[in-house]
Amino acid sequence: MEARVTCIPASAPNDISGLRAAIENGRVSAAHIVAILGKTEGNGCVNDFTRGYATDTFKAFLGGLTGQDAGDIERRTAFVMSGGTEGGLSPHWIVFEIHPDRTPPRPDRKALAIGTATTRPFAPHEIGRMPQVNETAHAVREAMAHAGIDHVDDVHYVQVKCPLLTKSRIARAVGDGHTVATTSTLDSMGYSRGASALGVAVALGEIGEDTVHDGVVCRDYGLYSSRASTSAGVELMENQVVVMGNSPHWSGDLLASHDVMADAIDAAALLRALAKVDIHATCPLPPEPARRVVTLLTKAEASRSGQIRNARHTMLDDSDIASSRHARALVGGVMAGALGRTALFVSGGAEHQGPDGGGPLSIIVRRGD
Amino acid sequence: MEARVTCIPASAPNDISGLRAAIENGRVSAAHIVAILGKTEGNGCVNDFTRGYATDTFKAFLGGLTGQDAGDIERRTAFVMSGGTEGGLSPHWIVFEIHPDRTPPRPDRKALAIGTATTRPFAPHEIGRMPQVNETAHAVREAMAHAGIDHVDDVHYVQVKCPLLTKSRIARAVGDGHTVATTSTLDSMGYSRGASALGVAVALGEIGEDTVHDGVVCRDYGLYSSRASTSAGVELMENQVVVMGNSPHWSGDLLASHDVMADAIDAAALLRALAKVDIHATCPLPPEPARRVVTLLTKAEASRSGQIRNARHTMLDDSDIASSRHARALVGGVMAGALGRTALFVSGGAEHQGPDGGGPLSIIVRRGD
Amino acid sequence: MEARVTCIPASAPNDISGLRAAIENGRVSAAHIVAILGKTEGNGCVNDFTRGYATDTFKAFLGGLTGQDAGDIERRTAFVMSGGTEGGLSPHWIVFEIHPDRTPPRPDRKALAIGTATTRPFAPHEIGRMPQVNETAHAVREAMAHAGIDHVDDVHYVQVKCPLLTKSRIARAVGDGHTVATTSTLDSMGYSRGASALGVAVALGEIGEDTVHDGVVCRDYGLYSSRASTSAGVELMENQVVVMGNSPHWSGDLLASHDVMADAIDAAALLRALAKVDIHATCPLPPEPARRVVTLLTKAEASRSGQIRNARHTMLDDSDIASSRHARALVGGVMAGALGRTALFVSGGAEHQGPDGGGPLSIIVRRGD
Amino acid sequence: MEARVTCIPASAPNDISGLRAAIENGRVSAAHIVAILGKTEGNGCVNDFTRGYATDTFKAFLGGLTGQDAGDIERRTAFVMSGGTEGGLSPHWIVFEIHPDRTPPRPDRKALAIGTATTRPFAPHEIGRMPQVNETAHAVREAMAHAGIDHVDDVHYVQVKCPLLTKSRIARAVGDGHTVATTSTLDSMGYSRGASALGVAVALGEIGEDTVHDGVVCRDYGLYSSRASTSAGVELMENQVVVMGNSPHWSGDLLASHDVMADAIDAAALLRALAKVDIHATCPLPPEPARRVVTLLTKAEASRSGQIRNARHTMLDDSDIASSRHARALVGGVMAGALGRTALFVSGGAEHQGPDGGGPLSIIVRRGD
Repeated sequence: MEARVTCIPASAPNDISGLRAAIENGRVSAAHIVAILGKTEGNGCVNDFTRGYATDTFKAFLGGLTGQDAGDIERRTAFVMSGGTEGGLSPHWIVFEIHPDRTPPRPDRKALAIGTATTRPFAPHEIGRMPQVNETAHAVREAMAHAGIDHVDDVHYVQVKCPLLTKSRIARAVGDGHTVATTSTLDSMGYSRGASALGVAVALGEIGEDTVHDGVVCRDYGLYSSRASTSAGVELMENQVVVMGNSPHWSGDLLASHDVMADAIDAAALLRALAKVDIHATCPLPPEPARRVVTLLTKAEASRSGQIRNARHTMLDDSDIASSRHARALVGGVMAGALGRTALFVSGGAEHQGPDGGGPLSIIVRRGD
Repeated sequence: MEARVTCIPASAPNDISGLRAAIENGRVSAAHIVAILGKTEGNGCVNDFTRGYATDTFKAFLGGLTGQDAGDIERRTAFVMSGGTEGGLSPHWIVFEIHPDRTPPRPDRKALAIGTATTRPFAPHEIGRMPQVNETAHAVREAMAHAGIDHVDDVHYVQVKCPLLTKSRIARAVGDGHTVATTSTLDSMGYSRGASALGVAVALGEIGEDTVHDGVVCRDYGLYSSRASTSAGVELMENQVVVMGNSPHWSGDLLASHDVMADAIDAAALLRALAKVDIHATCPLPPEPARRVVTLLTKAEASRSGQIRNARHTMLDDSDIASSRHARALVGGVMAGALGRTALFVSGGAEHQGPDGGGPLSIIVRRGD
Repeated sequence: MEARVTCIPASAPNDISGLRAAIENGRVSAAHIVAILGKTEGNGCVNDFTRGYATDTFKAFLGGLTGQDAGDIERRTAFVMSGGTEGGLSPHWIVFEIHPDRTPPRPDRKALAIGTATTRPFAPHEIGRMPQVNETAHAVREAMAHAGIDHVDDVHYVQVKCPLLTKSRIARAVGDGHTVATTSTLDSMGYSRGASALGVAVALGEIGEDTVHDGVVCRDYGLYSSRASTSAGVELMENQVVVMGNSPHWSGDLLASHDVMADAIDAAALLRALAKVDIHATCPLPPEPARRVVTLLTKAEASRSGQIRNARHTMLDDSDIASSRHARALVGGVMAGALGRTALFVSGGAEHQGPDGGGPLSIIVRRGD
Repeated sequence: MEARVTCIPASAPNDISGLRAAIENGRVSAAHIVAILGKTEGNGCVNDFTRGYATDTFKAFLGGLTGQDAGDIERRTAFVMSGGTEGGLSPHWIVFEIHPDRTPPRPDRKALAIGTATTRPFAPHEIGRMPQVNETAHAVREAMAHAGIDHVDDVHYVQVKCPLLTKSRIARAVGDGHTVATTSTLDSMGYSRGASALGVAVALGEIGEDTVHDGVVCRDYGLYSSRASTSAGVELMENQVVVMGNSPHWSGDLLASHDVMADAIDAAALLRALAKVDIHATCPLPPEPARRVVTLLTKAEASRSGQIRNARHTMLDDSDIASSRHARALVGGVMAGALGRTALFVSGGAEHQGPDGGGPLSIIVRRGD
């Protein structure tokens, strides 16, 4: 198998013209799409309808093309829309396809591999707690197996879409005699993201299984994954996992890599991730190595300490702009300055995804050889 | 004379505790302060009262210390407050002092020099037009003379505070039979900033005097200064000019430099400015050269083209967050990633200050020798 | 013919469950829908995608039900989505249907009548200028004729959807040797709304045809219609006009009325509009007359004077919240307090629609007899 | 004694020109001012510096006039600044003075009375808990005694300024072996406001002393005062209480009254409060009774149910505008429509102040006889 990744600019949340053109001119094949990640221009918070608008539009478009109904489309394709293009971030779609090999894989030469898996549906009282942690860890291992990724060191990005609590779900849990992780529906998004990220960390051996229990979720931020990117949505009750990494069983000229931003202005994380795939450069990245970076995905959040390298930030005190919006603008600026490009997948809400105020940074690059 | 520059963190717009401590422990001398620039945590737009709050607090504090009344303080000291610490920008004060030489100046070794001048008060109908351009150019030359800066190439930063139109000022102009540059009080800030910046450009020989006329102000953005930083305020009718550059007649171990950001993500502008003072480095700046950068001042704005390096940005379409707030967050991120620090003087409203979407970048560094 | 009006609450911009239920239980007939007006929970400004999301969702839903394609649906049905539910405003849909008479019309008893018409497409250079004014006036008269409304006094609400200028449209106009009303795409929305409202005012005899010329559009706000509600959209080049009023040729138990809010807090406008249909009451409206009000539609905007009854407002100085958002919250509060209900169609952008700071107020009521 | 109340418009948070003019022309006497309440044009949330700017400016001004230092001014005068003039609310100051009787009080004729009291400073672990409830209740009774208000029914407004938790205060409490009500500094404002309001409710007999315990604070919103208005500030550790009511021991032609808004659109609450002082009217209030209303003070908040009279509101889902800003705009609109005026003291954060989504409404009126 061969993974392909295509970045397409978006002029609006419902702009499918770029994908349509790519399909028409043969650059993308609708039947082989397994995931579409998108940066849409909403606020990335509670009332951001650009995510749903984008997803609905893509489903209708792909359904029309392939004759599948919405349920089929959903089963076959992961849609992960991240709202918020603050600062200079540029709205865009990242289309992932899996094609048959054009050339046979070479055991001495790993290539980008993609695998997916899904947990069982969670009961409301399980969200943000150990069952979600453990099932996610299990699904990550399953997705790795599907992807033919043999070692956890070869995993460079794990996207998890996870459920949240609603008023009715909480009522159901309480009616059944359970407690829930939180009675705040907003906070439940954080708990679900956090437990999912901890599940990734366990699966990848980043933290010991025995260090995790209900009490550390959204409390002990010293525990984290450097490769998880999790987002919560109301439309599902299970966790959907997409694992990306490198595998000798895949062909193609793409490779994944990652590192972790120690804080929001850690531009060197990009250089460290590049160095792992033998691209050695300084910032701002010169044109040639920059061209080899197909896509960059990272997480942003305001540090709970209220500081960045001992200097106060005001993100958490600003009642006019959500801290996640500030954080995306900031990290977007840091990485745009380093890479020379603004079409970056910078996403907010980084509970247990990288250290406090920092975040995982993953890249997909084109081989130089 | 010797110029000194001290950066002090601010915990709030009225936080004078850092300056008080610096005065008490002898790091700063109240009597020698000639300017205080500040980044305050407001929105940087029309209803940003953090700027006035900071200025009033500093005036009362310095007046209490030195026994001067508010008028004296204002005449002796320039207060330039720039609102907006979006993204990771850290609120701080930059205190400029002029002291007598401790060691005699050396003709072979220039040092940071500061000079000030003030135009005559403008009539409302002159704001945003050629009289403001020409008088500003004249004041820049005068401030250069005061500073002992002999060549325009030695000027690296020109801060101008300029007036704006109010409803009553417009009424007065119209009553006297004049037209005004604009009847929008908000737009008049841009016209005043723009005409002032063009005046700087003329004085520094960046554009020919004969290329400027009323019709190009806030229209032909191809004309710009790479060293002007102008801001409009309601409290004055004249232009107040502070010129910073290097002069053989000054002593001390500080030096100014500048370059221009070609667009909002041009991190290399910092490297180019550093190279001019013989600091050769790559980004992110290693600790030693970073330590030598005393302060960094730059302008940010959303490109009118709606694009950054051919990728769409959404700053001008966002009706929830002003484009100047996005732009400061972005440029703050770019420079924080490059320099490794968030206490940066990134200010908005860059009409004729650098190219569209870019902006002048000035630094003050400590000599290495 | 008989007009029916049904209000349906919305839980999200893509919530069609209420309409689906109304159709399934026979309260609404999909085939007879002629217009859907909606209040959606976006910001009502440039980057409000809730309007498009709602429209797309309704088109797909109605297309699926009736077997029509999107083009057919658009031709048959007017979708007017007004973003912004600030303050307490409640998102909702207002569904207008035209059914055959159930009982014959009675010449002595007028009933709610609805008529539509469309102008020819405008060239870009015509937008915001006299051709748009005159063609709109023509279309209003045509829609009145379709509705069987004989006198202009019987017109109580005129909804106009009108085009705006984009960069490419401006370029086309300029390439053809024309000037345009404004080169700002945002401002062009105001010009188009303003010229359309003036067209309504001319058609209804509210202002003399000879008082209108290009120079008054968005300048002389003393000229206005007390019944126009206009909104600009990028998706059309013509003006689409929906006229509502009372006609002896229609049956049913609904009646329209209107008055004009003299300023944003003119709660008495509701009482005056009610009195015209013989409902005499005081505020807050007692339950029985309140129940008879089927829907209330009004326009809101911040007065350009900066004052409401000689007291300063801060709507135009607030750089964090758009003035149109403040204005909708305010007028929504005034009318909710008066009527006792928050599902109100309060819409922003009132150029030449009511006096400065005020706006037209239209109601549809159920007969008491 | 005689209480006087003067409303003065504000053109900015630091606008003392109106008060200066009132003092110069003898309408207000600086030496007799006991309280200044203000609506300032910030966001009313965490980073609203307009409140501190106003307070600092008034203190410096009054200190300059009376020769008192800041400490004296603070001890003698309560400054209560409420940020947020959303919708049409007009920034203004309400100046309360206590003068000697000009005519002797009449036992058969009560008049507006004002009393103040202060609790002991609270330890951090007491904030938001029973010690704050009980001490506040005690202080309310003490302020009533000072004011010569004999019965709780004669109390119509109780303003409480109360402390909040900061990181260092929490650390101190924890270091001393205590827990705190909440470790969120933002949430601590709500706990402190809530406990203070419950203290008022206990003092006024609105709820039984035995119904209150730590567990109900910010949990059981069925418990509330219909006369408390509490606000938290970082600058104090004690509760400062101002009680307003009617007393036979005071003279003058002012009277207080109150009622409670059952929800955010309950315009009739104004009519009920007026009826209690024998002003019988309907909305919008005719000119004569409206003139007799000297000032109106009320609390606004978004109902936690997410609904107003069974219709959904979007205040709690809006991540661009804080719900307290929506709520002030809404209630400001409701009351402006009812009273015909926008200079209204509508303040946010109504924990245990009125029912969920509603709030206390107090008025001061001028006698008609």
